[in-house]
Amino acid sequence: MSKEKILLGHGSGGRMSHDLIDSLFARYFDNEILRQQSDSAVLEPCSKHLAFTTDSFVVDPIFFPGGNIGKLAIAGTVNDLAVSGAVPKYISAGFVIEEGFSMEDLETIVKTMAEEASKADVKIVTGDTKVVDKGKCDKVFINTSGIGVLDEKFVSIGSGNDIKSGDKIIINGEIGAHGMAIMAARNDLNISASINSDCACLNGLIRKVLDAGIKVKFMRDATRGGLGTVAAELVRGKEIGLQIDEEKLVIGEGVRGMCELLGFDPLYVANEGKVLMVVEAADADKTISLMHEHSFGKEASIIGEISESHKGKAWLNTVVGGKRIIEMLSGQQLPRIC
Amino acid sequence: MSKEKILLGHGSGGRMSHDLIDSLFARYFDNEILRQQSDSAVLEPCSKHLAFTTDSFVVDPIFFPGGNIGKLAIAGTVNDLAVSGAVPKYISAGFVIEEGFSMEDLETIVKTMAEEASKADVKIVTGDTKVVDKGKCDKVFINTSGIGVLDEKFVSIGSGNDIKSGDKIIINGEIGAHGMAIMAARNDLNISASINSDCACLNGLIRKVLDAGIKVKFMRDATRGGLGTVAAELVRGKEIGLQIDEEKLVIGEGVRGMCELLGFDPLYVANEGKVLMVVEAADADKTISLMHEHSFGKEASIIGEISESHKGKAWLNTVVGGKRIIEMLSGQQLPRIC
Repeated sequence: MSKEKILLGHGSGGRMSHDLIDSLFARYFDNEILRQQSDSAVLEPCSKHLAFTTDSFVVDPIFFPGGNIGKLAIAGTVNDLAVSGAVPKYISAGFVIEEGFSMEDLETIVKTMAEEASKADVKIVTGDTKVVDKGKCDKVFINTSGIGVLDEKFVSIGSGNDIKSGDKIIINGEIGAHGMAIMAARNDLNISASINSDCACLNGLIRKVLDAGIKVKFMRDATRGGLGTVAAELVRGKEIGLQIDEEKLVIGEGVRGMCELLGFDPLYVANEGKVLMVVEAADADKTISLMHEHSFGKEASIIGEISESHKGKAWLNTVVGGKRIIEMLSGQQLPRIC
Repeated sequence: MSKEKILLGHGSGGRMSHDLIDSLFARYFDNEILRQQSDSAVLEPCSKHLAFTTDSFVVDPIFFPGGNIGKLAIAGTVNDLAVSGAVPKYISAGFVIEEGFSMEDLETIVKTMAEEASKADVKIVTGDTKVVDKGKCDKVFINTSGIGVLDEKFVSIGSGNDIKSGDKIIINGEIGAHGMAIMAARNDLNISASINSDCACLNGLIRKVLDAGIKVKFMRDATRGGLGTVAAELVRGKEIGLQIDEEKLVIGEGVRGMCELLGFDPLYVANEGKVLMVVEAADADKTISLMHEHSFGKEASIIGEISESHKGKAWLNTVVGGKRIIEMLSGQQLPRIC
């Protein structure tokens, strides 16, 4: 199908839609639930809580070092489920495609989604394709929604209500790689930086920590808005403060250089494979050891802690010995990074 | 917020995103699950099968007689769940918005979604907003995914495997209204036709039939591709045929006139509030009576039946006494009708 283009008819719901589903989506995403090909996927009963999430992906460019929009669409939704303490299970995939889009590129994206879903042990069980006339969207947008299964004991992770002064803040590695990889990949910038996006499904890493019995008090993946926004958001309106030690942050050479050149603060640059975890001080070293055993946690470290002072605020202890309040990102730093 | 516009910052994940969520989405969609505002919505355990579906909506224009893109986004997903025999419960809403889009129009759409969800007794529990630069999408695209709860006894409805010769084909009213309403609403056509879209959530109507103990053997909402495509698809590859009597189809004056003028076949024009049901002959009259009691089933009628002849084919018994094979829609009849 290498020279074929997507036509409006591929979104008609008629024969061309069926052919596209059979020759592409069903072929790569194949599993016993998707094979039902009915209006809804029918899922087996499960007596646990469920986690349900949705994300639309509009990243520009759609191919970038370290991934593409398809990898991002699976990882983003898998991670949203995983940080809620859930085991990600089922994914839906909704495509909005621009008329004239290359069938070959679509196949590459769909293939990547299938591979990433397989690695993360999730099934793509239902989907939808719409085609809009040329110029009415930018190549392809993908929505993925996801369902995960959630043990009773993890139900409160999302709220962060158990967090206390003295708890440790952990992140599984370097920050800012995804946002700067996208920035470097944009054609209108003549920058050659070898920065790979950190885009990855973190459910395996997170499960390793949870299965070891670590009481994780809060988790969030630091995507849009970066680590800074997650930190500010976590303590907003709460009777605790949060401090991050700048010297403990891992920032790659390429990311640091590009941030300096373009005037970005790495604290607010998007990640797609980083989870911020809050654990009790007594559990922190064990958590780090567990993470170090996983390929996505090799550079995990304790970067700060929860404090009684500065209630409702997050701040950075800078390398030169100062303190800087970490606000939520205001305005837009980088459009369309996910 | 009447003169405000959507800015790229509203999709940043930072402060502006939060403000938009608080002032608009959380305000209209408010419920106890959405209020958690975590990465994933946490849903109560349920021991039944689940139905899971997704749909992206790119309708043009976004406002049309009888509805708007928001109403369509709720009805479309509710109906996909309902025709699987499920009770629709939870909906996700993912917005891709063009920079500069009117905040007032967005509010109207969000308000409509909230009203429609309330009527259909579903909760919007999780969401996502992305903003793309001006010219990179057309006003607003909405993805809704949905979860429904499915009784064991309805699990096989989606497959249609129980259908036998002699079973009756029922539809709940006139066909073609949605597609022709969209066509008439397009600015580039100087047609004044008073056609309202039939866009509606059908879960109440369908539940009425199922709760009365009618053994529904198959259901599908006749959206893209119209009644014709659903009929053709239902018998494709099966050891049965399907006949529809043209004289029993209800086609409104406006729809008929516009189809004649523009050369469309109403059989292939999209509906957004029509369900095709297959029931045993003995149940057919009771099904019709039940439907007549519901506001979305006033014009319900038996339009055809399953046959032993013409295996794998659907055909139309025309008003002039001929027979015409009903193929699946080939190519694209009307782009962006949903």
